[in-house]
Amino acid sequence: MSAKTKRKPRAASIGVGVIGYGYWGPNLARNFAESTDFNLAAVSDLKGEFADLARRRHPGALVTRDARELIKHPKVDAVVIATPVVTHHALALEALRAGKHVLVTKPLASTSAQCEELIAEAARRKLVLMVDHTFVYTGAVRRIKELISKGEIGDIYYYDSVRINLGLFQRDVDVIWDLAVHDISIMDFVLPQRPRAVSATGIAHVPNGRPNTAYLTLFFEKDLIGHIHANWLSPVKIRRTLIAGSRRMIVYDDIEPSEKVKIYDKGIFIDNSPENISKMLISYRAGDMWAPHLDITEALRIEAAHFAECIAKSRRPLTDGEAGLRTIRILEAAARSLADRGHPVDIVSPHAGR
Amino acid sequence: MSAKTKRKPRAASIGVGVIGYGYWGPNLARNFAESTDFNLAAVSDLKGEFADLARRRHPGALVTRDARELIKHPKVDAVVIATPVVTHHALALEALRAGKHVLVTKPLASTSAQCEELIAEAARRKLVLMVDHTFVYTGAVRRIKELISKGEIGDIYYYDSVRINLGLFQRDVDVIWDLAVHDISIMDFVLPQRPRAVSATGIAHVPNGRPNTAYLTLFFEKDLIGHIHANWLSPVKIRRTLIAGSRRMIVYDDIEPSEKVKIYDKGIFIDNSPENISKMLISYRAGDMWAPHLDITEALRIEAAHFAECIAKSRRPLTDGEAGLRTIRILEAAARSLADRGHPVDIVSPHAGR
Amino acid sequence: MSAKTKRKPRAASIGVGVIGYGYWGPNLARNFAESTDFNLAAVSDLKGEFADLARRRHPGALVTRDARELIKHPKVDAVVIATPVVTHHALALEALRAGKHVLVTKPLASTSAQCEELIAEAARRKLVLMVDHTFVYTGAVRRIKELISKGEIGDIYYYDSVRINLGLFQRDVDVIWDLAVHDISIMDFVLPQRPRAVSATGIAHVPNGRPNTAYLTLFFEKDLIGHIHANWLSPVKIRRTLIAGSRRMIVYDDIEPSEKVKIYDKGIFIDNSPENISKMLISYRAGDMWAPHLDITEALRIEAAHFAECIAKSRRPLTDGEAGLRTIRILEAAARSLADRGHPVDIVSPHAGR
Amino acid sequence: MSAKTKRKPRAASIGVGVIGYGYWGPNLARNFAESTDFNLAAVSDLKGEFADLARRRHPGALVTRDARELIKHPKVDAVVIATPVVTHHALALEALRAGKHVLVTKPLASTSAQCEELIAEAARRKLVLMVDHTFVYTGAVRRIKELISKGEIGDIYYYDSVRINLGLFQRDVDVIWDLAVHDISIMDFVLPQRPRAVSATGIAHVPNGRPNTAYLTLFFEKDLIGHIHANWLSPVKIRRTLIAGSRRMIVYDDIEPSEKVKIYDKGIFIDNSPENISKMLISYRAGDMWAPHLDITEALRIEAAHFAECIAKSRRPLTDGEAGLRTIRILEAAARSLADRGHPVDIVSPHAGR
Repeated sequence: MSAKTKRKPRAASIGVGVIGYGYWGPNLARNFAESTDFNLAAVSDLKGEFADLARRRHPGALVTRDARELIKHPKVDAVVIATPVVTHHALALEALRAGKHVLVTKPLASTSAQCEELIAEAARRKLVLMVDHTFVYTGAVRRIKELISKGEIGDIYYYDSVRINLGLFQRDVDVIWDLAVHDISIMDFVLPQRPRAVSATGIAHVPNGRPNTAYLTLFFEKDLIGHIHANWLSPVKIRRTLIAGSRRMIVYDDIEPSEKVKIYDKGIFIDNSPENISKMLISYRAGDMWAPHLDITEALRIEAAHFAECIAKSRRPLTDGEAGLRTIRILEAAARSLADRGHPVDIVSPHAGR
Repeated sequence: MSAKTKRKPRAASIGVGVIGYGYWGPNLARNFAESTDFNLAAVSDLKGEFADLARRRHPGALVTRDARELIKHPKVDAVVIATPVVTHHALALEALRAGKHVLVTKPLASTSAQCEELIAEAARRKLVLMVDHTFVYTGAVRRIKELISKGEIGDIYYYDSVRINLGLFQRDVDVIWDLAVHDISIMDFVLPQRPRAVSATGIAHVPNGRPNTAYLTLFFEKDLIGHIHANWLSPVKIRRTLIAGSRRMIVYDDIEPSEKVKIYDKGIFIDNSPENISKMLISYRAGDMWAPHLDITEALRIEAAHFAECIAKSRRPLTDGEAGLRTIRILEAAARSLADRGHPVDIVSPHAGR
Repeated sequence: MSAKTKRKPRAASIGVGVIGYGYWGPNLARNFAESTDFNLAAVSDLKGEFADLARRRHPGALVTRDARELIKHPKVDAVVIATPVVTHHALALEALRAGKHVLVTKPLASTSAQCEELIAEAARRKLVLMVDHTFVYTGAVRRIKELISKGEIGDIYYYDSVRINLGLFQRDVDVIWDLAVHDISIMDFVLPQRPRAVSATGIAHVPNGRPNTAYLTLFFEKDLIGHIHANWLSPVKIRRTLIAGSRRMIVYDDIEPSEKVKIYDKGIFIDNSPENISKMLISYRAGDMWAPHLDITEALRIEAAHFAECIAKSRRPLTDGEAGLRTIRILEAAARSLADRGHPVDIVSPHAGR
Repeated sequence: MSAKTKRKPRAASIGVGVIGYGYWGPNLARNFAESTDFNLAAVSDLKGEFADLARRRHPGALVTRDARELIKHPKVDAVVIATPVVTHHALALEALRAGKHVLVTKPLASTSAQCEELIAEAARRKLVLMVDHTFVYTGAVRRIKELISKGEIGDIYYYDSVRINLGLFQRDVDVIWDLAVHDISIMDFVLPQRPRAVSATGIAHVPNGRPNTAYLTLFFEKDLIGHIHANWLSPVKIRRTLIAGSRRMIVYDDIEPSEKVKIYDKGIFIDNSPENISKMLISYRAGDMWAPHLDITEALRIEAAHFAECIAKSRRPLTDGEAGLRTIRILEAAARSLADRGHPVDIVSPHAGR
């Protein structure tokens, strides 16, 4: 039996190269290695220690410390970039110019101008440009999207997220670019509206450091507000999002081993009986709670399959360059607001300047 | 007077009248009734239904629907006001003018000008004016105050509180005046600094309603920031405060039946070795966690004893009129900021205008 | 009789006397005092300190240290007994003989023979004899009963309960009589079968003391088993019951402030495909979880109303003398098994000896 | 310096072969592959699907479906057996006879006679025989052992463990052999005494099946008791152990992401004042709680290093054949007791029959 007639023809699978094998890269490499859509052709990392680790784990792949060698490699059809943010734009641009499809870890790039350049380059060359907004591919977030889309939650009142832990202080990004970006990308996916302005506050507790504790309020249309608390200096790890609507309310707790998404049949109703001077104009109702069984497939596995499908069928990913750009525009506005103690800053619409 | 009669001098006990027997009044009345320092001389409530309930529970007390009758009653030496905020100033002023000591539920009054008038009136008549900042008298908050005062936490980095639940929408106050006021009064008690400015955001989900979801960032001196999330529209009840310092970190969870205060021997330290382009400049350490055994005496019982002591010894309460005023000034600044989407507003120092 | 006087017929309300004002008595007295079906005519306690407390809280009631005075009191139609177990039988018998209806806190008496005597006496005099199996009247247990009765859970596989805390070591009863009795009475109410035998193990950690840590296995018909862990020497308080059935599974956690009852759409199904030597003969399914909104009315309030209704309509209470007797028979069998290191002991059927 | 003289000389590392690549085998294989003490020379699994997976993940190892080929392989110095229990004895014996060191997943074998044969064979050949009692190598259990050994807990009162979840029903072992075995091996490691008798109860809910719900009480000397609840049919996963002593109490919750071990400064003290007929003879004290920071190194990594050290230095492992035998003797006694509804069964001392 020839190799070609095997169940999943290797010959047709997509060769992928992963740049950056530090914190997140190994997860990406593992998922691409175990995917039948891809073959892990190459891994690169500047650090010898990480390159060695990659070599032990992926003996079949080319392992190099030179990202350029990886990008140019003929067996590499798609490049996955898992390096510090400052390097995203240059590496992604080089990969696109070499004719490779590109998946970049979040955030897509350091500035919205860089994002626009990548989007344009990918469009020109008809290549897939995707950003690794991982949470979008989790069973929990996909279920929340479905609940909101079907009207189960009603009109959305607020999205409130706490994403805090004792974390590494990163040198090239602040806590908003590191943690709040997850919530911004989830909101981008699940909410029916896009934010118009942001008020951000925060603080850097390290001399000359970047903010490690930050609060963002996102202003949408009337009746919807978003808020994110991102923090690298918390004694406990919390990953909890509340989404309240006119019909139901969601608690999404990503730390929970099971029942990550709980839906509460709770809410308020307006009672106009002119009974009391101070209270009970608005009443509330408390009903059942329900935790749907969720798909527990690893998000990166689903994301890899989606990347493969987009490449094969020339489709636009759920988390495409535009999603990456929208996210960066919010991060940029938040940075300006934070520097001005919460002064609200309008968010540029992606197509405003065109 | 013999030793035997000295211990519980019924004759010498303070006659107290409680105005308002709706939500919080019964707790105050019960604690004053069970205190040996006081005798519950009178209760008043506008509503017949609440007056009836008071009559059943406190058969020895005068029960009336007329607060003035209570204030004037000769057996009433001290007046406790547990009515809607809009009525605080008028009732407290009348009680002070009638020569009675006054304890007012939070917030002290509707405006800082009203607070100043009450403070001045109490000072003129040498009467005790106290505000019921209940949490200040809990075992948990007293322990936190002690830990901070003794330097166990180090320099305070932030105070972050989430105080949310599905609650009654009140007609006369918004969620900041109803819930955030608790955190503002706790901060006033435990923190070594006073806030200088506030950025507040929020939203009213009910037509013509007051904000029911609000976020406050309090700016202190460099390196300390405060944040409060107050919400009447949450599917779950959360009462959790994080206080991080340079030496240790506190998680205060008031929902926990025991171990409400946990102290984490965690933190960051700065490592200046120029090793890596992106990470590990700042490292963190994770040590033991410790939950001290707390005094579980009901806060109102301790508060009542403190009120009695202040009356007996002409002392200034821990939560005096000034504490009430400082709190109101923050609430006023927050309201202005919230109306302007987070635009920072300076907080007037209590003595600034004098 | 006019409609107005009909609703709250004070004259027709039942005079109740509460014997024992230590730990549980105050809760009973408060609920009877606030019930419109009853008037709290008298309270008695041997200890002056508790009698004093009762006098302050219930100024309208006769307060005495002599239980006999209370029983004989003409305004007392019903007697509630909240004293140590050793005194239950004598007090209840005296009250029945004085023509009073009787409610006894759990367990009903010290021996099954005593229970039988009380049952016979009440029957002879056509008086209500009720045992305070409090949990039976909670919203949680009533909902569980309903779920099981309607077949929502399917065939019951097991009832497993952990009821532990750091508790007072009682002198007159062991931990089985103090804590496990709650689960035995809940099982008596919710399960479709009655236990036939028991294997109990346990230990006394205090010289000459009674067991403070105990484990009971209750054997029912084939396919149903019960187990209780009762413990006075646990660092944490746990009140959790698992009830698994062929269709669904219940977790009842009484410590949870809300969502005390969770229903899991989980289970097993038998797959007879002869595929593997070691696994997967039986497969399992995991579906949604659901927490129904529960009635949060205080159990004693519902219990008091039920007691009133049984008196008024000469009905048999849900937790009648027979329920008390069945419970005692299990406790007696468990004591014998525990003394013999778990040797199984058959449970006498209530009507076996008749 | 040549590659050969590098820090951890490959040539001197121990060649290891892993038999069984189903559920637990991959974890063992991964840890041995990443250990510098070992090189993963071979993997075998009867199932082609699992063999294929091993081949993808460990391209450098021989992968075969024939365990004998693996055992005989000259590069294999040590054999790790992760197959169904029924096959342990034959495979381990064959490996020992081939002169290989052996690590067997728990439980060591199907009968105590089999264990004795393996122990004798290993002793005769001076080979290391180790059983994979994984929990013994966790940071949590090692810390508990240390606390008990140093007298921090005082005299141990009880060890109570709940180890339940919705699990695969295994064909060759029951839930005691699958889950309770973990607690028996932890007790063997941390407790200062060995159990003398066991009372076990349980039930099989599947026709002709093995028990899936079981309760074991272990009788030690006076004042110490052990209890295990093992269950494959629970809607929730619980892994919680309570260990109470005369000085302190431990809660070990393996589900907790952090703070797995909590130490409570709680206990009882005997107060002989003859005050009350029913209560307070024994009083209790409640002090602080403390959660030590634990080593979070993966247990299998530490276990692999220990196996290597025992091989290199001809040492007896912490979890040697005798530990495996003691565990099996308890399992055998429990099985007899369970068949007789909890009738207590003495546990044969390992050296009794010699």
